[in-house]
Amino acid sequence: MLHQELRRHVLEANLEVVRRGLVLYTFGNASGIDRETGHVVIKPSGVPYESMTAADLVIVDLDGQPVEGDKRPSSDLPTHLELYKGFPQIGGVVHTHSRAATSWAQAGLEIPCLGTTHADYFHGPVPLVPRLTDEEIEAGYERNTGLAILRRFEGIDPLAQPAALLHGHAPFTWGKTAIDAAHTAVILEEVAEMAWRAMLLNATAAPVSECLLNKHYLRKHGANAYYGQR
Amino acid sequence: MLHQELRRHVLEANLEVVRRGLVLYTFGNASGIDRETGHVVIKPSGVPYESMTAADLVIVDLDGQPVEGDKRPSSDLPTHLELYKGFPQIGGVVHTHSRAATSWAQAGLEIPCLGTTHADYFHGPVPLVPRLTDEEIEAGYERNTGLAILRRFEGIDPLAQPAALLHGHAPFTWGKTAIDAAHTAVILEEVAEMAWRAMLLNATAAPVSECLLNKHYLRKHGANAYYGQR
Amino acid sequence: MLHQELRRHVLEANLEVVRRGLVLYTFGNASGIDRETGHVVIKPSGVPYESMTAADLVIVDLDGQPVEGDKRPSSDLPTHLELYKGFPQIGGVVHTHSRAATSWAQAGLEIPCLGTTHADYFHGPVPLVPRLTDEEIEAGYERNTGLAILRRFEGIDPLAQPAALLHGHAPFTWGKTAIDAAHTAVILEEVAEMAWRAMLLNATAAPVSECLLNKHYLRKHGANAYYGQR
Amino acid sequence: MLHQELRRHVLEANLEVVRRGLVLYTFGNASGIDRETGHVVIKPSGVPYESMTAADLVIVDLDGQPVEGDKRPSSDLPTHLELYKGFPQIGGVVHTHSRAATSWAQAGLEIPCLGTTHADYFHGPVPLVPRLTDEEIEAGYERNTGLAILRRFEGIDPLAQPAALLHGHAPFTWGKTAIDAAHTAVILEEVAEMAWRAMLLNATAAPVSECLLNKHYLRKHGANAYYGQR
Repeated sequence: MLHQELRRHVLEANLEVVRRGLVLYTFGNASGIDRETGHVVIKPSGVPYESMTAADLVIVDLDGQPVEGDKRPSSDLPTHLELYKGFPQIGGVVHTHSRAATSWAQAGLEIPCLGTTHADYFHGPVPLVPRLTDEEIEAGYERNTGLAILRRFEGIDPLAQPAALLHGHAPFTWGKTAIDAAHTAVILEEVAEMAWRAMLLNATAAPVSECLLNKHYLRKHGANAYYGQR
Repeated sequence: MLHQELRRHVLEANLEVVRRGLVLYTFGNASGIDRETGHVVIKPSGVPYESMTAADLVIVDLDGQPVEGDKRPSSDLPTHLELYKGFPQIGGVVHTHSRAATSWAQAGLEIPCLGTTHADYFHGPVPLVPRLTDEEIEAGYERNTGLAILRRFEGIDPLAQPAALLHGHAPFTWGKTAIDAAHTAVILEEVAEMAWRAMLLNATAAPVSECLLNKHYLRKHGANAYYGQR
Repeated sequence: MLHQELRRHVLEANLEVVRRGLVLYTFGNASGIDRETGHVVIKPSGVPYESMTAADLVIVDLDGQPVEGDKRPSSDLPTHLELYKGFPQIGGVVHTHSRAATSWAQAGLEIPCLGTTHADYFHGPVPLVPRLTDEEIEAGYERNTGLAILRRFEGIDPLAQPAALLHGHAPFTWGKTAIDAAHTAVILEEVAEMAWRAMLLNATAAPVSECLLNKHYLRKHGANAYYGQR
Repeated sequence: MLHQELRRHVLEANLEVVRRGLVLYTFGNASGIDRETGHVVIKPSGVPYESMTAADLVIVDLDGQPVEGDKRPSSDLPTHLELYKGFPQIGGVVHTHSRAATSWAQAGLEIPCLGTTHADYFHGPVPLVPRLTDEEIEAGYERNTGLAILRRFEGIDPLAQPAALLHGHAPFTWGKTAIDAAHTAVILEEVAEMAWRAMLLNATAAPVSECLLNKHYLRKHGANAYYGQR
C-alpha cells in the first residue's frame, strides 16, 4: 500500500475533527498530499468514521485520477485539488460544517479578529469567499469552489491565514500537514464561537490593534516565536 | 412476535434520537410501518428509554386498533397514523422536542435554507404548520395535528422536505424508514442550530440561491446523485 | 437511622440534578418531607456530591431544629421550610442555579409559555418573584425568600405551577416528592433554554393559546390524563 | 525535587480547568507560589495536558530565573510574576481563554453582577483591564499585562474580586492557592455564561442591590460566613 505514513496522518486528521465534535455522521473530509509524487490521500465519500481505517482512504493524483483504493473519494475532492495546486506551501486540507464557523459563513460575514485567541492562529480576519455564480455552480461546482478560494486569497499568505469561509456553505482550513489543518479547523470553531458571542453582546466590538495582532501571531509563528518547547 | 426486524429498526430509531441528545426523559417517539400489512410499530407512552426493548414496542393497525403488545402506544400515535395515510411514500416517523428545532417552532418561523448543510437534506425551507384552532385542539387533537401537517404539505414531496415544525409545539420528521426519519431529526436539529446562530448574527442573512439549493440536494438525492459509495 | 427511604429519595433527587448538568461544584440543594412527623431531610451545606451518601443528609423539624445528623444543613434550609409550611400539598423542594433558568431570573422576566413542552409541565408562565427589600435581605434572608415565593403564589396551585424564579437569584422547584421536584428542575432548565432561544429569534413570539395550554397540561395531569402507562 | 506538594497542587489546578472544559489543546496555564522561598511553580509552555506530570512543571524565582526544570515556562509567566509581586495575599494564578469569559473580554465589557451566583464569589462586577498601548505591547508585553491588571485593581481587594478580564484577550483569576484560582476560573466561566444569556434576553437587566451583593458575598466569606461545614 502506498504512502502508509501519510495515510495514517490523514486518518488521524479525519478522526480529530470527529473527536472534537466538528462533524455529524459522515459530514466533513480531510486530505493530505505527498508533494514528491503529487499523490493526494483523501477520505472516501459517505463512509462512517467509526469503522474507517487508513486502508479505506483513497489516493488520487493532482488531476483527480485514481492511484490506489477502490472507494469513491469525497465529493469535495476537486476543491482540495485546486487548493493543493494554488497553494504550493500547504500539505493538508480539511473541510467541515462545524457549527459556529458555518454560522458565520451562512450569515455571510468574515470573522473579525476580536481577541488574541484568534490572533494566535490567524493573522487577520477569516476571509469570506463570495457566493459562486449559477454558471460556476452548474458545471464543475466543487472545482469552482476551490478556484473561488484561490481568487479570494490573491496576495494573502495561506499559511498566515489558513482558513476560508464559503458564503452560504462552510469553512475550509489548511496547513503544512493534514493534522495541522485539522487543528486549525478545531481552533477556528472555537474562535468563531467566541466572536459570535462577543458580537451578540456588543455589535460594535472592535478588532484588536494591528500591533497586538502582530505580537500574538509572531509569538507563535516565524523566526522570533517564543511559545512552546523548542 | 410480529415484525421482529421492523421492531428492531424502530427501537434503533428511538434510541438514535436519545443518543444524539434530542430527547429528555421520555420525550419523543419514533414509529415505522409495514406497508404490506398496514401495521405500525411505535414506542409505548412514557416508558424510560434505558430499559426499552424491541418487545416493549406496540403494534397497531392504521386505524390505531391494537395488534400486538400490552402497553399503551405513544399518545402522539394518531399524528403518526395520519402521516402514514397521507404520505404513502414514507415508512417511518419521528417526533422530538429537540432544542433548536423546537425553538424555531416556538418562535413561529420556518427555518430558511441559509446554507448547504440544509440544502443537502431539505429541498427548501422547513415548513411551519400553523397553530390549530380551539376546535381542532379540543377534540381529536393528535389526529388534527397530523391533518394540519398534511394540509401544509399539499403540493410538496414529503421525501424532498421530510420535516415540519408545528407552531408552538415541535418538529416531526419522516423518511423511507424509521431510521431515516431519526437521522433527519438529528440533522434538522443541527440545521436549526446553525440557522439560529446565523440569524442572530445577521438578521438579513439571505437564503442560498435556487441553483445552489438544487445542486446540493441533487448531489445527494435522485438519479444523478454522486455523494457516497454506490 | 430515621427515614431511610426518604433519605434515599432525597439523595437521588440531589444526584439527579448533578447528573443532568444543573449544578456546578456544591451549588444546589434538594430536600424532602415526611408529613407525618414533619421531619425534613436536606442536603448538608457545601459537601461534595461525589462522596455524598444518604447518611450525610441532615434531618430537621419544620422549625429547623436538628433531629438527626451532625452536619450543618444547606444554608437555604429556611426557604425550604417556608415552602413546606405554605404548600401543604408538596413533599419535595429543589434549588439550583441552572444556567438557562437562572438567566431568566437574572433578566428579571417570567418564562412565557411558548410551547407544549412548557405546557406539559407548567400550567402557565413560570412566575417571577420580585426582589426582596433591603430589610428582608438583612435579617432572615433565606426565610424571607420563602415567604416572598408564598406571597407570589397566592391563588396559584403550587402543583400546577411547580416552579418560581427569584429575581436576581435562581429557580426553586417543588413537587409531590423530592424526585418529582428534581425532574421539574431538569425540565424547567430545558424549557428555559428553548424559550430563551425562541425569544432571541422572535422577540414578539406569542404564548400558546389558553386552549392548547389546558390540553397539554391536562393530557399529563388530572383525572382525564392519557399520557404514560396506567 | 523541590516543592513536591506545591507541584502536585499546581498540576491539579492545571488539570481542573481542562476537566471542566475551559481549555482547548495547550491553551491556558496555572501557577502557584511558595511565599517562603519566592519560588513559583508553573506549567511549561505548549506541553499537552494528557501527558503532563508534576515533574514537568517549571520552577522559577520571582525574577523569572530558572530554579528547577528543563522545560521553558509558559510564555505568560511574566504576567503571573507581576501578580504575585503586586498581590501579596495570593498564592495561585490561572489564565484561560474560556469561552464565555473571553467573549466578555472581546466585547470589551465588564461582567455586571446580575445575580447571587456572581455575588457568592465576586464582590462586584468583574473588572475590565483596558487594552495595552502599542509601546506596552512591543516590549515586555506579558509583564505589562500584569502591570495593567495591578493598575486596574488599585484600591480593590484582590481576594474579594479574584478575576480580571483583559480587553481583547481573556481572563486571569487568582486565589489563596492555585486550586482556588482554578475553581474561580470555572465559576467565572459559569457566571459569564449566565450574564451573557441574561443580557441577550434583557439588555437593561439591572445588577443586584448593594445589600444583596454584600449578603451573598459575606454568607461565604469573612468572619460571619455561614455556608459550608466548619
